[in-house]
Amino acid sequence: MEGEFEFIARRLRPLATAPGALGLADDAALLDPRPGMQLVLTKDAMVAGVHFLEGDPAGQIAQKLLRVNLSDLAAMGAAPVGYLLALARPRNIEDDWLAAFCAGLAADNAEFDVSVLGGDTVSTPGPLTLSLTAVGELPKGEALLRGGARSGDDIWVSGTVGDAALGLAVVQGALEVAEPLRARLIERYRLPRPRVALGQALRGLAHAAIDISDGLLADLGHIGETSNLGAEIRADLLPLSAADLPGVRDAALSGGDDYELLFTAPPSQRDAIEGLGKKLGLPLTRIGQMQVASGIRVHDATGAEVHPQRSGWQHF
Amino acid sequence: MEGEFEFIARRLRPLATAPGALGLADDAALLDPRPGMQLVLTKDAMVAGVHFLEGDPAGQIAQKLLRVNLSDLAAMGAAPVGYLLALARPRNIEDDWLAAFCAGLAADNAEFDVSVLGGDTVSTPGPLTLSLTAVGELPKGEALLRGGARSGDDIWVSGTVGDAALGLAVVQGALEVAEPLRARLIERYRLPRPRVALGQALRGLAHAAIDISDGLLADLGHIGETSNLGAEIRADLLPLSAADLPGVRDAALSGGDDYELLFTAPPSQRDAIEGLGKKLGLPLTRIGQMQVASGIRVHDATGAEVHPQRSGWQHF
Repeated sequence: MEGEFEFIARRLRPLATAPGALGLADDAALLDPRPGMQLVLTKDAMVAGVHFLEGDPAGQIAQKLLRVNLSDLAAMGAAPVGYLLALARPRNIEDDWLAAFCAGLAADNAEFDVSVLGGDTVSTPGPLTLSLTAVGELPKGEALLRGGARSGDDIWVSGTVGDAALGLAVVQGALEVAEPLRARLIERYRLPRPRVALGQALRGLAHAAIDISDGLLADLGHIGETSNLGAEIRADLLPLSAADLPGVRDAALSGGDDYELLFTAPPSQRDAIEGLGKKLGLPLTRIGQMQVASGIRVHDATGAEVHPQRSGWQHF
Repeated sequence: MEGEFEFIARRLRPLATAPGALGLADDAALLDPRPGMQLVLTKDAMVAGVHFLEGDPAGQIAQKLLRVNLSDLAAMGAAPVGYLLALARPRNIEDDWLAAFCAGLAADNAEFDVSVLGGDTVSTPGPLTLSLTAVGELPKGEALLRGGARSGDDIWVSGTVGDAALGLAVVQGALEVAEPLRARLIERYRLPRPRVALGQALRGLAHAAIDISDGLLADLGHIGETSNLGAEIRADLLPLSAADLPGVRDAALSGGDDYELLFTAPPSQRDAIEGLGKKLGLPLTRIGQMQVASGIRVHDATGAEVHPQRSGWQHF
């Protein structure tokens, strides 16, 4: 079995392409934001059996770990730069597994133009435990914040929602779905697509943004609380992959892990946002409005109130 | 038991004093190095039963986690700014334990003038697993690197070495020591003192630096390899807390977790470095010399070669 130093030298060093990573030879990495830019830092942890399944492909676990962090950067409107990785390795994780894990990182480093900047590998008697700190960059003072929403703002969501929760249900055998939708839902659960280009393009258009990790209602609640506002959304307007699947509306409202962007913007930006969606080839759907009254209200097309079954995940 | 959001709001938010932490209300933190400065990032992970003992005081576990990272910043010559924390919590970790953990962080935030900048809390079926990403700042281009040593440089070490390994042996019941040395060794194991002021003062004086985490010989080996040099040190010159304890020399050479700084500097800086030690009230001891021939050689006062028992820890 590879030791710590061998793992770093053989597997991680080739991924540490940024000059500030210092070839992982030092105690820390050096980072210089370009003139007029500021750095953005975020950190997420994942545990085998809690945030992914033991049998998930190693490369996809690596990519999910990286992408959930890139999604946080996207929600702030930042461009990704690089990341530091901590890996607590149980004995049953073989060198081959680590090689596949690092191949997943390598693929995403190329796709998202990021570099390993540092990290730590330790042994654990428990489950595989991962944490990643992602670094991004954006023009000073232009970050999209949760607290910037204003009453009357439209509420928008990117892509489709509920897919990751349905994909998990499929993987766990709780839901039967025919191909090709089956593969698409599983991929949505295993391999989030952080909306990196959208997040950056929303600077100057959106008032507030968040990525959907806890569930649409819970994350809209975070925007509402931080902005001291409430919201009303229309359940029938939610962008769904398959409207006739059982539980799809609850999954869309309360399922986590979609990693789409939920954002608010003034009605004056509707044309610009619709144009942006076309330019990016990504559906952007208007689902409601921010309001002065606190709390989140959900209605259907007839105006009747909808009561979703769960109000979001807590990962703790 | 407190949920994730309650833990963040009640315990962590009061520790997030930096404006860029955004009150932990957002997906990420914002960081601006001051003009002429660059940021330094490092990340270390710790697992219960591997890097600390289950029964260690919660506040001291928090402080150790923070301090081992501050020690990495010190080795680069950086001033600490703040940190992101990831905590994977097993069911048996009660709210009281978390309160004590955060009280430890609060104490060290004050002592080292740092702020929580963000983080993530998750549940785990395994042991308590922690990781921390520390952010520091230094004047652009002035970082102390492992690869900067030159042949003929003096090798210096701060404080005393071997204490943490002896402290662990005492805690584990493998070594009996009388008070007050007993308490001192245990504290050295549980509560490292990152040499933050020394690291910053060494910018411009030292050619290379590293903090002793893997053990003096292993960490000197890292400087040697990265600088393409070797070294000779004198075992009889090692600064020890108690020269007559069994195993003390092996602990000094190969025991990890001392978190003293090991650095190299040209002989022309001897007076300046001795003056610095006096100013800081911290012994700085010259123990050898960097040489062209690769490898680390250890001799005693008579010139005879010394063969230490272990060549350092691997945490993986």
